[in-house]
Amino acid sequence: MAIKVHGSPLSPAAQRVLLALAEKDLEYEFILVDLRSGEQKKEPFISINPFGQVPGFEDGDLKLFESRAITKYISHAYADKGTPLIDQDPKKQAIIGVWLEVEAHRFDAVGQKLNFELLIKGFKGLTTDEAAVEQLQGELGKVLDVYEGRLGKSKYLAGEEYTLADLHHLPLINNLFKTKVKALFDERPHVGAWCAHLLARPAWQKVLEACKF
Amino acid sequence: MAIKVHGSPLSPAAQRVLLALAEKDLEYEFILVDLRSGEQKKEPFISINPFGQVPGFEDGDLKLFESRAITKYISHAYADKGTPLIDQDPKKQAIIGVWLEVEAHRFDAVGQKLNFELLIKGFKGLTTDEAAVEQLQGELGKVLDVYEGRLGKSKYLAGEEYTLADLHHLPLINNLFKTKVKALFDERPHVGAWCAHLLARPAWQKVLEACKF
Repeated sequence: MAIKVHGSPLSPAAQRVLLALAEKDLEYEFILVDLRSGEQKKEPFISINPFGQVPGFEDGDLKLFESRAITKYISHAYADKGTPLIDQDPKKQAIIGVWLEVEAHRFDAVGQKLNFELLIKGFKGLTTDEAAVEQLQGELGKVLDVYEGRLGKSKYLAGEEYTLADLHHLPLINNLFKTKVKALFDERPHVGAWCAHLLARPAWQKVLEACKF
Repeated sequence: MAIKVHGSPLSPAAQRVLLALAEKDLEYEFILVDLRSGEQKKEPFISINPFGQVPGFEDGDLKLFESRAITKYISHAYADKGTPLIDQDPKKQAIIGVWLEVEAHRFDAVGQKLNFELLIKGFKGLTTDEAAVEQLQGELGKVLDVYEGRLGKSKYLAGEEYTLADLHHLPLINNLFKTKVKALFDERPHVGAWCAHLLARPAWQKVLEACKF
C-alpha cells in the first residue's frame, strides 16, 4: 500500500489527515505511534518529522509532516478523486486559503487550549484551570462571532461548497462538542448548522469508526 | 492600479506581503492603516478583514486578508512573473508546504513573542519580561536546531531553491536581528548563512526602502 499515516487515533491532527483521505476515498495503512512511551521523539519517526510530533505521512517515497501540509498535498495530488477540497481557479482558491489561515491562526489557536484544559488534562489526571477556560471561552466566542457573520452569507466558510477550510475544523469541533464549550457553537445559529453539516459527513463517520477508542 | 495593500510599514505581516510583491516585481498601491487610532477595527477596513488586523489586500474585485493566504495567492496567480516561489509539481510543492507550516506553527509562534518582548514593548514603553525572554530563547533554539540540520542538507528549507517557505521568515528575522536573539541564529552556521542569503535579497532591500521608518 502506497499511503501510510503514522500517528495516534486520539490526535486531532492525525484525524485531520484521515478525514482528507476519507473524503478522497483513498486507502492507507495506519501505523500507530505510541505517544505515551515517547515513540514520536525517537527513530524511525523523527526521520519523518524532526520536531517529533504526529502525524507523519508517506506516499511512496514522499515523506511529509505537519497535518495541514499533508491534507493540502492530498487535495492537490488527488484533485480528481472523491470530494473536491480545493479549487483550481487562483481567486477561488485564495478565498479557501484565507479561511485555511483563519482556522490555523484564530480557531485552532484558542480551540487547542480549550481541548487541553477540558479533555487532555482529564486523560492525564490534571486539574482544569477554570479561570483560563473562562477567558478562552471569551476569545473563542469572538472568533465564532466572525464565523456567524460569514456563515450567514454562505453555507460554508469559502462559499457554497465544503472545502479543506471547513474540513480542518472538524476534529477539534468533535472534541469540543463533548464539553460545555458546545454551547458557544449552538447559540450561534449559522455556526451551529455548519457544525451539524460537518459532523454528519460520511467521511467523518468513517474516521470516527477508524479511530474508535 | 489593480493591487492594493492596506497595512502599516511596521507590521511584519504586511512586510511579508510586500516582499512577495517585490519578488514578483508587481506594482501596488500602499494604503496606510493607522494602528494607533485603531483604524483596523473600523470600517472600511473590517469589510476586508472582519478580525480587524493588517494587512488587507485587493487585486481588482478580490479582497483578501491573512498575510500567508495573500502571499500564496500572489505566488499562484502570478506564477510566471519574477521569482518562482512555488512549484507546480504536487510532491515538490508538498515539501514547500511542510516548511510553510513549520514557519507558521514553530518559528513564528515563538519568534513573534520574542519580537513583542524585545521590540514592541520598547515602542510602547512597556518593560521586557526577561524571564520570559530566557524561556523563549530556549524554545527558539530548539526550533533552530532542526533548521540547522535541515539547512546542512539543502541551501534553502524546501531544497536548493529559495521559495515562499523561506520568504515567510524574512520580516521576523530582520526584526530579531536587531536584538540579542541574533546570536541564536549566528551560532548555527547553516542557519546563519541562510539568514545572510535571505537578508541580501534585492526584493528585501526594496521592501526595507519602501518601509523606511
